[in-house]
Amino acid sequence: VGGGVGSVTPPDDQRPGQFFSDGRRKVDYVLVFHHCRQTSLKGSRGGGDREVCVDLGVGVDSVVEEAYLEGDPAEGEKVLIREEFEARLLEAGLEMERDTEIRVYGPSFTRLHAPWSVLSREAEFLKIKVPTNKVRLPTLSIFSMYLLFNQRLYYKAHSTCPGFLFLLHDEWARYGAFYKYQPVDLIRKYFGEKIGLYFAWLGLYTQLLIPASIVGVFVFCYGCNTVDTNIPSQEMCDEHQNFTMCPLCDRACDYWQLSSECGTARTSHLFDNPATVFFAIFMSVWVAMFLEQWKRRQITLNHSWDLTGLEDEEEHPRPKYQTILLQKKQKIRRNDKKKKKKIEVGTRDFIWGGGCLSISTSLLLKLTWRDRLPGYLINISSILFMFGLTFSLVFGMIVYRIVLSTVMAMSPDPQTKSNVRVTVTATAVTINLVVILILDEIYGAVAVWLTELEIPRTERDFEERLILKAFLLKFVNAYAPIFYVAFFKGRFAGRPGDYVYVFNDYRMEECAPGGCLIELCIQLSIIMVGKQLIQNNMFEIGIPKLKKLIRAFKDKGISLEEREGQLTRHPQQWNLDYTLVPFDGLTPEYMEMIIQFGFVSLFVASFPLAPLFALINNVIEIRLDAKKFVTELRRPDSVRTKDIGIWYNILSGMGKFSVIINAFVISFTSGFIPRMVYQYMYSPTGTMHGFVDHSLSYFNISHFPSGTAPTSKAPNITFCRYRDYREPPWSAEAYQFSKAYWAVLAARLAFVILFQNLVMFLGLLVAWMISDVPKDISEQLKREKKMLVDVFLREEKEKLHLVQTLFSKNHPSEGHPETARFRTLHPVPSWRLHSTTIWSFLTG
Amino acid sequence: VGGGVGSVTPPDDQRPGQFFSDGRRKVDYVLVFHHCRQTSLKGSRGGGDREVCVDLGVGVDSVVEEAYLEGDPAEGEKVLIREEFEARLLEAGLEMERDTEIRVYGPSFTRLHAPWSVLSREAEFLKIKVPTNKVRLPTLSIFSMYLLFNQRLYYKAHSTCPGFLFLLHDEWARYGAFYKYQPVDLIRKYFGEKIGLYFAWLGLYTQLLIPASIVGVFVFCYGCNTVDTNIPSQEMCDEHQNFTMCPLCDRACDYWQLSSECGTARTSHLFDNPATVFFAIFMSVWVAMFLEQWKRRQITLNHSWDLTGLEDEEEHPRPKYQTILLQKKQKIRRNDKKKKKKIEVGTRDFIWGGGCLSISTSLLLKLTWRDRLPGYLINISSILFMFGLTFSLVFGMIVYRIVLSTVMAMSPDPQTKSNVRVTVTATAVTINLVVILILDEIYGAVAVWLTELEIPRTERDFEERLILKAFLLKFVNAYAPIFYVAFFKGRFAGRPGDYVYVFNDYRMEECAPGGCLIELCIQLSIIMVGKQLIQNNMFEIGIPKLKKLIRAFKDKGISLEEREGQLTRHPQQWNLDYTLVPFDGLTPEYMEMIIQFGFVSLFVASFPLAPLFALINNVIEIRLDAKKFVTELRRPDSVRTKDIGIWYNILSGMGKFSVIINAFVISFTSGFIPRMVYQYMYSPTGTMHGFVDHSLSYFNISHFPSGTAPTSKAPNITFCRYRDYREPPWSAEAYQFSKAYWAVLAARLAFVILFQNLVMFLGLLVAWMISDVPKDISEQLKREKKMLVDVFLREEKEKLHLVQTLFSKNHPSEGHPETARFRTLHPVPSWRLHSTTIWSFLTG
Repeated sequence: VGGGVGSVTPPDDQRPGQFFSDGRRKVDYVLVFHHCRQTSLKGSRGGGDREVCVDLGVGVDSVVEEAYLEGDPAEGEKVLIREEFEARLLEAGLEMERDTEIRVYGPSFTRLHAPWSVLSREAEFLKIKVPTNKVRLPTLSIFSMYLLFNQRLYYKAHSTCPGFLFLLHDEWARYGAFYKYQPVDLIRKYFGEKIGLYFAWLGLYTQLLIPASIVGVFVFCYGCNTVDTNIPSQEMCDEHQNFTMCPLCDRACDYWQLSSECGTARTSHLFDNPATVFFAIFMSVWVAMFLEQWKRRQITLNHSWDLTGLEDEEEHPRPKYQTILLQKKQKIRRNDKKKKKKIEVGTRDFIWGGGCLSISTSLLLKLTWRDRLPGYLINISSILFMFGLTFSLVFGMIVYRIVLSTVMAMSPDPQTKSNVRVTVTATAVTINLVVILILDEIYGAVAVWLTELEIPRTERDFEERLILKAFLLKFVNAYAPIFYVAFFKGRFAGRPGDYVYVFNDYRMEECAPGGCLIELCIQLSIIMVGKQLIQNNMFEIGIPKLKKLIRAFKDKGISLEEREGQLTRHPQQWNLDYTLVPFDGLTPEYMEMIIQFGFVSLFVASFPLAPLFALINNVIEIRLDAKKFVTELRRPDSVRTKDIGIWYNILSGMGKFSVIINAFVISFTSGFIPRMVYQYMYSPTGTMHGFVDHSLSYFNISHFPSGTAPTSKAPNITFCRYRDYREPPWSAEAYQFSKAYWAVLAARLAFVILFQNLVMFLGLLVAWMISDVPKDISEQLKREKKMLVDVFLREEKEKLHLVQTLFSKNHPSEGHPETARFRTLHPVPSWRLHSTTIWSFLTG
Repeated sequence: VGGGVGSVTPPDDQRPGQFFSDGRRKVDYVLVFHHCRQTSLKGSRGGGDREVCVDLGVGVDSVVEEAYLEGDPAEGEKVLIREEFEARLLEAGLEMERDTEIRVYGPSFTRLHAPWSVLSREAEFLKIKVPTNKVRLPTLSIFSMYLLFNQRLYYKAHSTCPGFLFLLHDEWARYGAFYKYQPVDLIRKYFGEKIGLYFAWLGLYTQLLIPASIVGVFVFCYGCNTVDTNIPSQEMCDEHQNFTMCPLCDRACDYWQLSSECGTARTSHLFDNPATVFFAIFMSVWVAMFLEQWKRRQITLNHSWDLTGLEDEEEHPRPKYQTILLQKKQKIRRNDKKKKKKIEVGTRDFIWGGGCLSISTSLLLKLTWRDRLPGYLINISSILFMFGLTFSLVFGMIVYRIVLSTVMAMSPDPQTKSNVRVTVTATAVTINLVVILILDEIYGAVAVWLTELEIPRTERDFEERLILKAFLLKFVNAYAPIFYVAFFKGRFAGRPGDYVYVFNDYRMEECAPGGCLIELCIQLSIIMVGKQLIQNNMFEIGIPKLKKLIRAFKDKGISLEEREGQLTRHPQQWNLDYTLVPFDGLTPEYMEMIIQFGFVSLFVASFPLAPLFALINNVIEIRLDAKKFVTELRRPDSVRTKDIGIWYNILSGMGKFSVIINAFVISFTSGFIPRMVYQYMYSPTGTMHGFVDHSLSYFNISHFPSGTAPTSKAPNITFCRYRDYREPPWSAEAYQFSKAYWAVLAARLAFVILFQNLVMFLGLLVAWMISDVPKDISEQLKREKKMLVDVFLREEKEKLHLVQTLFSKNHPSEGHPETARFRTLHPVPSWRLHSTTIWSFLTG
């Protein structure tokens, strides 16, 4: 899409480039096309021409043209298509101005102006209403309607109004304004409803993150404050307790004292304490609250933006779809011809059937699942392949960690040995982060390719399918390593004397002695912060700049001297705006936020600071996006829409998923349940004293298989301890799961059921208590309806009166037969909810 | 509400009573009022008159009148009110006919006729559209519109059309038509949208019960077929296995052989087998499917019944609400006066504040929660009391069973002794059923009373609150005993040697040796079948007939001779219709079905035949209801509504609840999980052989506390067995829960999580796959929109042309200044979606 004027330049009334050459008609939309330099030596028009033109600008929404463009027609054909397209625009009532000089190559601009009559007609068809709320001025609403149709930059339109972009720049795209509400109405006026809704959504999300962050920080502080009085970590740190633990690797590692891991135990308590359970419940309710609040906000915006009556329009099919449909039709026709010939040669019974079929099918022809089957198959296999890729990379990281730690543990250098855990974790997480970032970009591109293969009928279908696919791939990519740490790490490691080995030689990795939760916490914070810092901010600022540079460079290559010459001669606004980056949809913006929402909702039980990080990121993000929209991008085409579409479903699905994930994190990843079970079932004193001892099983070191026992020195102990609930060596069922194991398991599962159902119930309660339509809006709607009835009754009376006056002039003595006819047309006051009447109201 | 003509009498063209005395204007609505016989001796008009009149007929929707009626005004005042009311009807354009003779007492009829102009105006305000679907004739739709406003009985209107009631009677209210779809469009045309939707819903529900019944019967058959090859029941029946069980009661009961309970074991297998698990999943998906299908059906009906554009109207407040609001206002005014006086006496600072407050508050005055607080408090305490009552009755039944079985077990008569279980179960369930039926009626009445106390603002509010309350109470009433059997019975009975006693003497009851599931099954089937047979069918047929009899009797008492005389003289239709039963809402009909839906969804895991019973009941129910509506009731006022309202929420809530209930029934009530755990964890052969032995624990009979061991004869055994997973007497932790107990518990809980999440996921999948709006409807809507645009464009042109013709006649040489003015009023073709244009279309 060509036009849209977008860069911020100093205000200048009647600046050239905002008006047609007559200085009165405004430029509402700009079309751009490229003349191509013919590098081929063959002059023939038919084919074989190689073109170096960059087709950046031409993407106008004439379906025919795009369909032709797919076939890459020659320059001559393009001129014809363009002429047809422009003729249609003129036919629709638009006015047009072309460049006066005819250029041989490089971009060429065609300016469009939409006169008042066209605007009125379209307003009528869009059923735009005037607000009945007395506070807002009617002029403002004419303004807003204007912008729905035209693409115009108000620098200093008419004296009095300060110009949209400047307002947006001052009130919105400025870090200094971070504490302010966004001027959502202004954003919607300039960028259209779709973008307005995105920023409104982002604003609400950020706003609601504030209470979540505060509660999260409190929960974290609770952990900090209670760490010194926490009995299990005290017991772990107590050197007198003297728990000798079984070695962490075969041969090379020695027995070790539990008290040496005092640090991780204390850190773990910061995130793994009873307050976390409360926080998980709180956040689940928060998610439900957020969804409900958004519904309300959306309805409020719908009302104030006059979208309540907006219905789904029948969309144009995509050009690609039409092309393939055309091919199918041609194929069927060809087959029919063949059949007919065959039938004529053979029996004559099937003629009628065959002929009839072909006529009816070619009229009602659609692409069915048969036509799409190859696409679907490629889709499914590609998605499975990419899931496989992600999982293998996760497995690769595991192997990397196992091998590196084993190798480092065997190193003779004590310095290396002592840094095993830090080195392994740091390198692994960094590599992981880089892999995630790279795959994210790849998956984004693959999703587009796959969606094209499905041949969706309309642009909306395309967008929905693309979003769903991209979300699925990116979600799995971002969360697979986190799921591994949360639910699988250390659960398949076996027990002393019966470890599980990978590649016959390497023992499966276990969680740190402080528990898996602390590892999950580290993983989460690094991926979340790293992803946001690198991807969102660096990429979002860096890549557009890079693209701009490349475009500038390319354009230079084509028509350096000429362009510069032209610019000096006519520094038109559209020339400046053309150098800006085209807008390519809100999908990346939403995607980024949704993945972040996952960090805030899915694993919040293990990382109460996630909302705070998200909040900080979003406060910056809003202004960064604002700056990008105001200064870096061409002005996007405005799109009317009532809601945020499929994103809401994804959010709500994630909310549902987060309940079960948090339930499992608390009951299986954290130590909450074993502690509770100990306190209320096993503790002799009813306190947590003795918990560490109870949670460690015994292993008789003489039971080590040969070659796996530590080699360093002769042990002066009989038993080493390990973290599990198993029968002791002296039991009849040595090393089998103990009764405590099953009791703890039952308690964990019972907690999951309790948590899930409690939270689901609370969520339903929240959804039930917060009504979707705010009360004042529903009352306002009813009042509006009443007002409209009154207005229309009055207007109809007036019209009837006018007609009667005319008749009485015409037939002073006769009856009123014509009036009667008019009355038949209007037996009762007519109902017109929409703008015609309003126009008469405002103008007459 | 007075009128509505409804009884089926032989067709008779131009029958008296269908028309005004001029024989042309039809009777559209009939108002009835009673002249009261003044039994008081005082002739004064002011007060003190005692009236014996029965105010059955007068309930016209004039709010003022009803508000006055609350205060029970004297006869003279009533006449004034009636006159005012009738004047308003005339003002609204209705035509009226009164009885010619003035009667002293008894019912008096006022007939209303709505002329065409009034109908057109109201059609306009209701925004009734003409269908664009070419198949339906426009005349039909005018008909339908007609019926929305007027209340008329078409016996043989205009020759050609056979009369609605006769069609309904032949096509619908006939048992012979049970296999046919209901004529829903016809029902809606005669009874209005609300009742039409009810029958459409009932039809869909019944229709979807067919596949559920078939699958249910198959599941039952699977149980029947596998009962002979089922190893656990074979083992239980095998007398060689010789399991000596601990006695079922203290002292009086003896040890018994497990094989003696072979029968229940085999019966239990019919309902407790792996197919049941499949069936529970199937039914949960079925519920989701049903809800989605209903949404689709509702939208289809909305479209074909022209309800898509229907918006919530601002409703009139209820008279009761207005009365109380008035009282509040008066009170505030009185207080203000007092305050002012006080302020004048005291300081002068508060005058301004006080005065201002009273003015603003009296304008915006509403009833707040403060005014409703006493009502809410009474509500909450009453509901809690009634819950308490229900639970105490359940507990009472338990005590009854315990005491009766103990007493009968101690009886010396062997005949009595052998029949203990049968007698106890049969009497208990019967009493239970009777109690449920009685409480159901009481709770229904109490719910109405409680809702009145809440002072809801509108009729819709009232209905929603009433339904919610009545549902809650009736649901708890019907399901409390079932929940007890499913989840509590036998779980608090203790173990041999440590039984739990009620009232110090009576042992808590246990489930039958076959398991709790079979008891649940008996309980369910008796309550379900009994409730449906007695309440729905007997009450529904019996009570209306009884009411009619009582009414007839009362009327006779008042004016026997006169009425008969009048009837002979003028056998008018309204006299006949007046004897019918007034319609009192759909709530009882829905409630009955919803409670039944609970039997079909909530406990379906234990009783796969429930859908079949429900199906049989509903097939009869539909025709029974149809007969009632067509022949027994006065014609109800038609109500336009888009959906079934709060009932959908209740259904959907029940669907959600059923998932968790079924999960718990399968894992805790049925023996499915213990069997699975045995087979895959404990069985030495991997088969079910040895399961019964494994599921029984040992008890050393020397451990019986003194006085509880059987007295009958000296035992020749050391151990008796009981059903539980506990450590044997020779273990160190004798009689503690064994490891198997915890393993089974963990497996049960894991199953609940798995089942719940699987089924919820399937439900979401179903909801996602079945789109709410059928594709053809959404396409039809888009097409209609396009057609309307074309029609209106054409019509506007025509109108403009007409005006121009007039102008050219008027000012043959001048310009067209007036046309210009008209054009300002219509700058572009106007949009009118609604019927005015259609009228002109049809008529002009």
